[in-house]
Amino acid sequence: MKNIVERLLQGDRRALARMVTLIENELPQAHTYLAELHQHSGKAHIVGVTGSPGAGKSTLVTRMVRELRQQGRKVGIIAVDPSSPFSGGAILGDRIRMMELAGDPNVFIRSMASRGHLGGLSTATRDVVRAMDAAGYDPIIIETVGTGQAEVEIMRTAQTVLVTMAPGMGDDIQAIKAGILEIADIFVVSKADKAGADQTAAELTMLLSLDPNRRHSAWRIPVIKTSALKEQGIPELIAAIQKHQNYLKESGMLTQRAQRQIHSEIQNLILQSVAKTLQAAVGNEEWNKLIEDVTRRESDPYSVATALQERIGLQHPTP
Amino acid sequence: MKNIVERLLQGDRRALARMVTLIENELPQAHTYLAELHQHSGKAHIVGVTGSPGAGKSTLVTRMVRELRQQGRKVGIIAVDPSSPFSGGAILGDRIRMMELAGDPNVFIRSMASRGHLGGLSTATRDVVRAMDAAGYDPIIIETVGTGQAEVEIMRTAQTVLVTMAPGMGDDIQAIKAGILEIADIFVVSKADKAGADQTAAELTMLLSLDPNRRHSAWRIPVIKTSALKEQGIPELIAAIQKHQNYLKESGMLTQRAQRQIHSEIQNLILQSVAKTLQAAVGNEEWNKLIEDVTRRESDPYSVATALQERIGLQHPTP
Repeated sequence: MKNIVERLLQGDRRALARMVTLIENELPQAHTYLAELHQHSGKAHIVGVTGSPGAGKSTLVTRMVRELRQQGRKVGIIAVDPSSPFSGGAILGDRIRMMELAGDPNVFIRSMASRGHLGGLSTATRDVVRAMDAAGYDPIIIETVGTGQAEVEIMRTAQTVLVTMAPGMGDDIQAIKAGILEIADIFVVSKADKAGADQTAAELTMLLSLDPNRRHSAWRIPVIKTSALKEQGIPELIAAIQKHQNYLKESGMLTQRAQRQIHSEIQNLILQSVAKTLQAAVGNEEWNKLIEDVTRRESDPYSVATALQERIGLQHPTP
Repeated sequence: MKNIVERLLQGDRRALARMVTLIENELPQAHTYLAELHQHSGKAHIVGVTGSPGAGKSTLVTRMVRELRQQGRKVGIIAVDPSSPFSGGAILGDRIRMMELAGDPNVFIRSMASRGHLGGLSTATRDVVRAMDAAGYDPIIIETVGTGQAEVEIMRTAQTVLVTMAPGMGDDIQAIKAGILEIADIFVVSKADKAGADQTAAELTMLLSLDPNRRHSAWRIPVIKTSALKEQGIPELIAAIQKHQNYLKESGMLTQRAQRQIHSEIQNLILQSVAKTLQAAVGNEEWNKLIEDVTRRESDPYSVATALQERIGLQHPTP
């Protein structure tokens, strides 16, 4: 019998599903398998889709996947958005639309619980991307909701980030000012059949032209209007994603970003391991005693940290 | 000559300012001093004030401080909000208002840069709170903007969190649904002289009554309307803050929260130290080589992490 890694590399969906479960449950063998899978990864284009609830993300993703399937691509979807139909949330119409995707053997959908990841949701997402990538899915679409720090962190896994908004959601332009501008590679104004779509797109274009951080970038963020009703904009969007991928490759940024990610990944793996070692070395009862002493001002957090560090054999930083 | 800790404990403002600078620059002696200061801390009530830009936070804080000064309190202010006049941002009117506070010897204002903290902004904020606390400031007000994960993390340092909103900012009610509800202890509807204030307050009260997480809590989140124009609401707000502090004390939650914070503080101190040890042990050149090998798929992040861990003497987690 072949092992899970071999089967996954041959495109066995059940092996991939099992791998994802191992990652989600943070089982130790996950890392062993992922270490083997790593050399077969790095081929997929990773596309992030984010935006507020109601911005039309799931309709957009469904239509993107349909288009990509017509081009013969094998598509992976990771939904971190609890309101997404891909995660089992959302309204009936959305769910029905995605049912057609779920039945396609060349589409692999996995939703990620947004809580309970000791190692962090972005770590788990990145590992699932690696597994899908090694299994031959390309592109891999990661859908998140909102623009909090957790989402921004997840979006760092993506190479091309789409920020979606619907016309008439006045708050979105505000939200963009607050920081989303930094991570967006492409803006999508969805529901472009609605009144106000042109204005939203114009405001966005204006805002982008004013951003000093973007002025010297060779990549001009496109603002693309899409409409499910009028069946508009999806080929343009897919083309823009492809163009961004080419830009990343040609400018050397794809390698640069990959290196930055690998760096932070290695650091995070070590820190997570330290956290686990600490958990194992210091029992609950001892933790409680240590914390009570600090709370009662009989000791202080800095001295306790130093003592525990010595206990788990950790060297001190050189001064 | 007395050392910085002694001078700080006697209320010397320059010693406190110097201590804050040591913390901000993450100098090693900061931890030595903070370890000594810890036993003198734990007396101050820590109040967080958050809300979108334009929600009237800085006017609110200015008026709160005025009221607290009339009660003879010695007030510390930490501004993490880049748009706050306390941080040097905001418009002229706001800055003029806070000038009167800055001249008061019993008010200590410090703004924190929101970038460049290796150990994290919330770590630095917590250490500055500890220093102000030991120097006799009580309450200590932390002002942040927005409701991203960084802000939520900073707000965990606070014992009582005020979420501020102005009437007619439709997005706020949406934002609240998205997660801020979890951290709010008191809601403030500012600019209560404006049209729509009563409606905003009513909507909030309704929203709170529907929140299943809050239904079983003994603390009923009050919604307080304030108006600078009509000089309204501030004594009520100060009373509500006091009431919340009493609630935390009597319910044992103050101790419980303090213990949880101490726990995560100790863990973070250790993780930060690991990160520094790693930085010192692995030079830039070696890092680049390791990262390139992984990027080229000649090795993988998991194996590199394991090797580096062994290098810095770290034990493996027991399986």
